[in-house]
Amino acid sequence: MTPDDAYQWLMQNSLETAYLISMGHVLGWDQRTHIPPNGHAHRHNQFAMLAMWIPARAPDPQVGDHLARVEGSGLTSDPGEVAAVNVREWRRDYDRATKIPQELAVALAKATAEGETAWEQTRPGNDWETFKPFLVKIVTLKREEAQALGCATEPYDAHLDSFEPGETATALAPLLAQLREALIGILAAIQGSSRRPRTEIVHRHCPIPAQERLARLAAQAIGYDFAGGRLDPTAHPFSTGIGPGDVRITTRYDEHSFSQALFGTLHETGHALYDQGLPVEHWGTPRGDAVSLGIHESQSRLWENLVGRSMGFWRHFYPRAQEAFPVLQGVDLEDFHFAVNAVKPSLIRTEADEVTYNLHILLRFELERALMNDDLQGDDLPGAWSDKLQAYLRLTPPDFSQGVMQDIHWSAGLFGYFPTYTLGNLYAAQFFARAELDLGPLEDNFARGDFAPLLNWLRDRIHSQGHRLWARPLVREVTGADLDPRYLVRYLQRKFGALYGFDGETET
Amino acid sequence: MTPDDAYQWLMQNSLETAYLISMGHVLGWDQRTHIPPNGHAHRHNQFAMLAMWIPARAPDPQVGDHLARVEGSGLTSDPGEVAAVNVREWRRDYDRATKIPQELAVALAKATAEGETAWEQTRPGNDWETFKPFLVKIVTLKREEAQALGCATEPYDAHLDSFEPGETATALAPLLAQLREALIGILAAIQGSSRRPRTEIVHRHCPIPAQERLARLAAQAIGYDFAGGRLDPTAHPFSTGIGPGDVRITTRYDEHSFSQALFGTLHETGHALYDQGLPVEHWGTPRGDAVSLGIHESQSRLWENLVGRSMGFWRHFYPRAQEAFPVLQGVDLEDFHFAVNAVKPSLIRTEADEVTYNLHILLRFELERALMNDDLQGDDLPGAWSDKLQAYLRLTPPDFSQGVMQDIHWSAGLFGYFPTYTLGNLYAAQFFARAELDLGPLEDNFARGDFAPLLNWLRDRIHSQGHRLWARPLVREVTGADLDPRYLVRYLQRKFGALYGFDGETET
Repeated sequence: MTPDDAYQWLMQNSLETAYLISMGHVLGWDQRTHIPPNGHAHRHNQFAMLAMWIPARAPDPQVGDHLARVEGSGLTSDPGEVAAVNVREWRRDYDRATKIPQELAVALAKATAEGETAWEQTRPGNDWETFKPFLVKIVTLKREEAQALGCATEPYDAHLDSFEPGETATALAPLLAQLREALIGILAAIQGSSRRPRTEIVHRHCPIPAQERLARLAAQAIGYDFAGGRLDPTAHPFSTGIGPGDVRITTRYDEHSFSQALFGTLHETGHALYDQGLPVEHWGTPRGDAVSLGIHESQSRLWENLVGRSMGFWRHFYPRAQEAFPVLQGVDLEDFHFAVNAVKPSLIRTEADEVTYNLHILLRFELERALMNDDLQGDDLPGAWSDKLQAYLRLTPPDFSQGVMQDIHWSAGLFGYFPTYTLGNLYAAQFFARAELDLGPLEDNFARGDFAPLLNWLRDRIHSQGHRLWARPLVREVTGADLDPRYLVRYLQRKFGALYGFDGETET
Repeated sequence: MTPDDAYQWLMQNSLETAYLISMGHVLGWDQRTHIPPNGHAHRHNQFAMLAMWIPARAPDPQVGDHLARVEGSGLTSDPGEVAAVNVREWRRDYDRATKIPQELAVALAKATAEGETAWEQTRPGNDWETFKPFLVKIVTLKREEAQALGCATEPYDAHLDSFEPGETATALAPLLAQLREALIGILAAIQGSSRRPRTEIVHRHCPIPAQERLARLAAQAIGYDFAGGRLDPTAHPFSTGIGPGDVRITTRYDEHSFSQALFGTLHETGHALYDQGLPVEHWGTPRGDAVSLGIHESQSRLWENLVGRSMGFWRHFYPRAQEAFPVLQGVDLEDFHFAVNAVKPSLIRTEADEVTYNLHILLRFELERALMNDDLQGDDLPGAWSDKLQAYLRLTPPDFSQGVMQDIHWSAGLFGYFPTYTLGNLYAAQFFARAELDLGPLEDNFARGDFAPLLNWLRDRIHSQGHRLWARPLVREVTGADLDPRYLVRYLQRKFGALYGFDGETET
């Protein structure tokens, strides 16, 4: 078999896997939007079948044989070329899949399925003691998995690398520590300010049909293509890229918080704009994939926060919001903008603002890194959580369910996932700063309702690049600089300095 | 490998195939209800992948090896037992799949894909001459397929057997000839009557939201479980059994014909009630499947016509319809019932009434049988169509698009499919007659809104039996008699004799 034939085999194999995954996306969308109540058991069985088929394809020895025929051939000589990118990622997936022993994979699947169920059952009753052994078991298995996968410097690296290829704790920790100190400083300045936003504004009663119209208008305004997508209501908002021409978003409506649906829609639209901009001709192969969870999150955060919570956006959009929601008609634009940017430390990550959100993530990063590296034991987790929450946010969780048990991630085995949220914020700020260097002050565009220059810039430099580069090299190529938390810090200092009236230009 | 192990392998193989098919049903439902406009190309690719995977599983030599190990073992000694039923059907599928040469399967797939496209493109312009060579090609290949499959007495049998296992032209033709003569007689009596229904009643303006509420009410009234299903609008109504607890129906609304959505809903509900009543514990294996297209159609026709167009049904339901549609408030129940049972020969099968519908089918049965047996050539098809339409309905098609080109079936290679519609009507009438013997006059129940005795009877004797028996033995077991067209003839004579005022008790 020639390298060309081997490459064609790998392409077909990649596409078949992608089609199975893409069918799963249709099943998942349907499950969360339209499935009848009694249909869930069968849907779980369908997913179980996919969960048997899809991972079973990855360690197929034929993949290894074909990769060996292609690697070192002329096909992969230029690392920037399509074939080289595809082979690089297929190799990575194959090596990861073959390194994990079958028994460990089964034990992990079982432990995380049980862990999620235990979490769902014990969290409402705040029952940490019952939940703990499930978590401890998962931590033990995830440590074994890290050993099996191998790691540059510490076990936690193997998990970081699962979600953010190439990222390591050693490279990431100093950046996050720098961010942490800056955020604590910004938060102190905010809390020292006498200015307070009128937060009741965002809790006024807004009927859901009007919210839905506004959410559609917002998604369309920033460039979401409804001919290739849909917006539906769900309990938990998400975006799903079924395939070319079919990238769907959902949002959640609350009559007493229009901002939930609106910013939720902008967030999911950000994810969807990335998927709608991926190179169609490479669909189903690595070259056509997104880079990583962090880069995906950078797109959602950029549109939700750097665009959607900017004064420029609201100069354009506020008259539309006032038309949709008569309760806003007496409210000044400035008061409204301050209200949707209120900063207030809270116990729950998912409700956090732009400043405190990353402190929630840093807490988790530090704790899960210590767990994986055996520097922290399950018994000590709630105490460590409380200590850090006190140090970063000056809050103490009143119970486990609002503390160490608040997120499902760990019970699902998702260690190394949380940092991708903050990486997304770091990337977003650095991308946005570069876009303004290239395009001029973007808020002026937003105020005119013109979001196309920014979207086109992202399309050209990020979306259309697919998985050509990993995240750090992509950041370097796009922005001309290494990943640097000072972009995010400077953005937050300026924005919240102006809102809360402190000097936003402090150097960090 | 023991017979038990071989049987377990076949069970797993059957389930995996069923899950792939069931995923296709979700994709199909989504495609016809919610897919965004630009999502169709990717959906076609997903279906193409399923169309590659699913048929490729059938002739797998491992299936043959495992079947050989099970057959003749103790597992299959009692033909009524689950294992014997499953093995019987797996054998049938395997033999059919292995008999068709790969080149013929590919040629057929290509010819029918091209045939459907040609039909879609040539029908609007009435362009028979352009369409004809595509049809001739398909007829030639379908004859080859029949030869490859083998047949009892004539090539057409192989195709009949595809949709109605065990059925043959020799067994079926005399029953259909008997039906044809009786129908021509009933139609003559109707056309000789001076009574005419007020058909304008069904074309009064009825707003779609009210139609939708009534359609839901009707589906629920006859026993459709909305906790395990949904009703959505689509261009072409259908029912799809995704799996246990998830059987969905759709209907089409027309503001100027409420009967389209209502009877369409009852029809699809009939299909869905069958699927909702199949034995869940055998899902994914033959024992849990429906018997055949004809038996499936018997359930839809039974609920649409024998129940839904009965006076008993409307005694219960008409006040609800009048409440939903104020335009009906001055209309007598008797006039209304007559209007929804109007008989009028028409050119188009899908718009036909209970009497003339089967004459449309008999025409197609006779023509496609002649085509398959090489007794009729493509050139002579339009003439033969006109002759039969004149003989049966005293109509002449003004053009090809309302004649020989009106249905997509032949261009999709579906020969042997049409008779299942009439078989469905025959089975339905015979089942219904037996149910009334067992349960007493059912219209009295319907008039009280009580459809449960009939549904429970069908559940017990037909739905829960899955694919234990083929259609003819099932009819014999359920009704105590061989399939006999006189049940349908007697039902039509009585009903339309009463409506149009002729002697309905003529013996046939």
